[in-house]
This record gives sequence, structure tokens and C-alpha cells, in this order.
Amino acid sequence: MCQLLALNCAEPTDVSFSLRGFAARGGLTDHHVDGWGVAFYEERACRVFVDEKPACQSPVADYLTRHPIKSRNVVAHIRKATQGGARVENCHPFMRELRGQQWVFAHNGDLRPLDKPEAGPYEPVGTTDSEAAFCFIMNRLHAHFLTNADVDDLDAVFEVIQQATRVLNPFGIFNFVLSNGVAQYAFCSTRLSYVIRHWPFSSARLVDGDLSVDFSERGTPADRTAVIATTPLTDEVWTACQPGDLLMFRGGALVHRAHVAVPAHVLASSRYALSEQSALAA
Amino acid sequence: MCQLLALNCAEPTDVSFSLRGFAARGGLTDHHVDGWGVAFYEERACRVFVDEKPACQSPVADYLTRHPIKSRNVVAHIRKATQGGARVENCHPFMRELRGQQWVFAHNGDLRPLDKPEAGPYEPVGTTDSEAAFCFIMNRLHAHFLTNADVDDLDAVFEVIQQATRVLNPFGIFNFVLSNGVAQYAFCSTRLSYVIRHWPFSSARLVDGDLSVDFSERGTPADRTAVIATTPLTDEVWTACQPGDLLMFRGGALVHRAHVAVPAHVLASSRYALSEQSALAA
Repeated sequence: MCQLLALNCAEPTDVSFSLRGFAARGGLTDHHVDGWGVAFYEERACRVFVDEKPACQSPVADYLTRHPIKSRNVVAHIRKATQGGARVENCHPFMRELRGQQWVFAHNGDLRPLDKPEAGPYEPVGTTDSEAAFCFIMNRLHAHFLTNADVDDLDAVFEVIQQATRVLNPFGIFNFVLSNGVAQYAFCSTRLSYVIRHWPFSSARLVDGDLSVDFSERGTPADRTAVIATTPLTDEVWTACQPGDLLMFRGGALVHRAHVAVPAHVLASSRYALSEQSALAA
Repeated sequence: MCQLLALNCAEPTDVSFSLRGFAARGGLTDHHVDGWGVAFYEERACRVFVDEKPACQSPVADYLTRHPIKSRNVVAHIRKATQGGARVENCHPFMRELRGQQWVFAHNGDLRPLDKPEAGPYEPVGTTDSEAAFCFIMNRLHAHFLTNADVDDLDAVFEVIQQATRVLNPFGIFNFVLSNGVAQYAFCSTRLSYVIRHWPFSSARLVDGDLSVDFSERGTPADRTAVIATTPLTDEVWTACQPGDLLMFRGGALVHRAHVAVPAHVLASSRYALSEQSALAA
């Protein structure tokens, strides 16, 4: 299984602390070795860096540590291939343009093939279940916003994502993060946590590396950051999402929540996957 | 004005020699200082690196020199802003997915605003004339291949690009390169050159830097590379395209050519731009 990381910040933020702990999971402190990727929004632009090498050995990861990009929205992913080979086109996050906005998506889980793809302009380039699911959501958004100019209506976007998630949910484990550069949408199918950092800040220590940061030395009252990850990255107090939680973060805050029921067979397969993982780690 | 570089190779090729000479034009040997970008295809995947810094100072360019990517198709661009600020979203090349393929585009020239954008799913993220023209072409391709599954028919793609170019041509100077990862399409509105390297190879010296490479030490009979650029990069014998030349390269060879007449007012504005440039350089 893969690991997800997303950040949604009120102000452009150097996220290299979180990225460093996260990258360590790509082969160093965990077994997610089939590539990784990260997308940084810089206002309307989105830069995507992907690498089919493990994140802990990746020269791109090293480059980003030395040349941090300040961003309000970041989506990162470390891959343990379940479907699709360790090739660049199968590395998350995936990006597509819709109505003049860049959208990025990363998935943790395993979906069986969709009955039929949603009609529309978006088609997968690679062979993953994840990119197929992303294209399904994007085609739904395209159909909705074709006749409705206001793609900036984040609640309307939330609504479409919620409907698409309801369709895709029975196909398997479907934890995901999706951003349009303003909001972060996150769905907990089986496992996802988040923490909100805000003023007055305290310090945090990475779970996956001997590194602490005292955010109180840097943060201002205007700063606020939501960090969303498969499992907590730091020793801060994280909130574990419940299966079925669909969340929207904006300006570093949780601003909307809905529930999309996760079928029992998916939760059961997840428990099997988790116990298998524990056995591997043991 | 900007500078274009594209490569189309029979085999995955390390293009850092050409890229090095090209990057020198981004502020070192020439005045193209408003950002740069390069797209590398790796089979179906395409990795785009853009930077709003001058290429000659860019840490991304430095990174790519130290970690060369082998590719069959490369599109690079150095920007001297004419329309749209020096922002990441305005850096070429631009990328969009169509029918499960990544398409990239870079433009050298200056277009006045289109009368109306072509209807379709592709919309610009930034504010350049170039991205608007790219979206125009992509929407034409989308409309054509919506009902025609065979987007792998490169001649059919050529036909659509030719028609779109005929529409866009009167709006100004429109030199461009466009790739779908298999072919390179290149249009000479006012200025474009190319060279084909094939076995037995000889050596080449960069025009923009004290560097020579003896390709005969590396190349095999299977290797063949077409290099397309605004102006020749090396002391090899380059072919200067004629205004109106629309070319298709595949497997490192020129495989198709058509003519799209360039209006006299565009050629006249180009002569003005060139003389202005000479005056600046003097």
C-alpha cells in the first residue's frame, strides 16, 4: 500500500519538514519503494515532481530538500505498487487541467477495475487503478462544470466529488487527496489522519527521523496549516479520520465534512491488508 | 522573443549536450531571462520542469545537467516575456492529456488575442498568448479524435495541426514545437532550423559555449536524432526552415512536410522584431 501526504496552508509555507519525514517512508523507515511524487502549487501553477526511484534515494527528493518551494497546497505520495509497474507514468500525483485550473490527485488503496469509465475528455496515461479513478472524478467534474461556470464554488466541487466517491467506494480501498490549488479534498476509506497547526505554535518531532522543528519560532498569527497523511508524521496530536469521512480543507482549516458509507467488504479487506502489513513488518 | 528547442530521437538519448548550449541562452549568451522549461518523455510519461528564473542560473537546470534523463522526445523553451508576467504558470512547455497521451507545446513569437477561443475542454491556466494557442490546437484535436479512436494516426494529427495553424497564423508570429511523445510537430512562422544526426556520426561544437562532443564515440547505426531550434545550436550544417514550413519528425527523421502560408503582415512584423533585436545586441 502507498502513503499519502497533503498540506493546505493559509500562507505559502516551506513544507520541507513534513516532506522529509514522509520521504523517509520511501524505503528507509518503511517499505514503499516503487516511486514517489509531489505536487506543489504556486498560485495557479502546479509543479509536479515524480520519480520511479524510492523517495529515500531519489535525487529529486534531495534537490527539493535543498531548494524548498513555498506553497499553499501540496500533494505527495509514496508508492508500493499494487497495480501498474514501477514506471514514471504510474507515479502519483496525477495532474489534469479543468476549466483553467490544475487539479492533482493521489490515492492510497487498491480498486478493482471500474465497470466502465465515465465518459469525458480525461483518460489515463498509465495503467493504475488510481489514475483511472482520478479520470472518473475529473470527467464527473467536467460534466458538471461544463454548463456551470462557477468552478470556484468549492462546495459545488465538494458535492461532485462526494457523488463520484459514492460510486467508486465499493470498488475497493479508496483513501485519496485531491486539490485544485485552493482547497484540499481528502477521503478516508480506511485510514487517514490530520493535524491543524495554528498560532501559538509549538514544536513537533518527526516520527520517521531524528528531527524536531519549533514552529513557534517561525509562525505568525496569519499562518495556519492542515497536514493530512495516511498515518501521523509527528508526535503532535493528530485526529484519526473515520472510514467514510470526506473532508474539505481551506486556508489551513477543516471547513466541510460529509460521510460516504464504506461497504463492509472494503473495511474487511482493509483489516486483512493491515494484518498482512503487520506480519511483514514483524 | 523566446527560443525553442526540440529533439526527436530513434532511441532514448541523453540530450544534456544540446540542453547545455540552449540553457546558456537563458541570460548568459542571450537575453531570454524570464524563465525556462523543459519536458522529457519517458515512454508514455512526460516530466515537465519549469522555472521562472533564468535558465543559466536555475537550480533545476543544474540538477538536470547532473542527472540527465534519457528521452526520445524533448521540448524546451527559454522565455523572454512578451505577454504574461514571469510566473511559473506562464513558463513553457505547456502540457495537456488527450486520449491518454501527454501533449506538450512551446511557442516562440507573439500573437494578438484570438477572436474567440475554440470550444472544448482545454483552457489556459496562465495569461500567455502561447497557452491560449495551445488550448486552441488541443480543442481542435479533441473535437477530431472524439469520434475517431485512432489518435495514433500521426498523419491525421498532422492534418488537424495544419488546419489549426492556418487559423492561428494571421494572429502573429507563431513558431512552435508540439509533441505527443512519438512525433515532433514543428512550425516555422518566421524562424526555425533543424539538423539530423545519424550514423556515422561526427563531432559538434556548441555555438553558445566552449564544448564539443564527438558523437561518433557514442552513436550506433540505430541512433538518429533530429534537433530543432530557433537558431542553430552547433557548428553542424543546419537546415533553415522556410516561413510556412510545417514539419513532422519521427524516429529522428523528417517524415512529413506541408506549407501553411504566413501572411505578409506577420513576416513584416518579424523583420521589425529582428532588426530591433539586432539593435539591442549592438
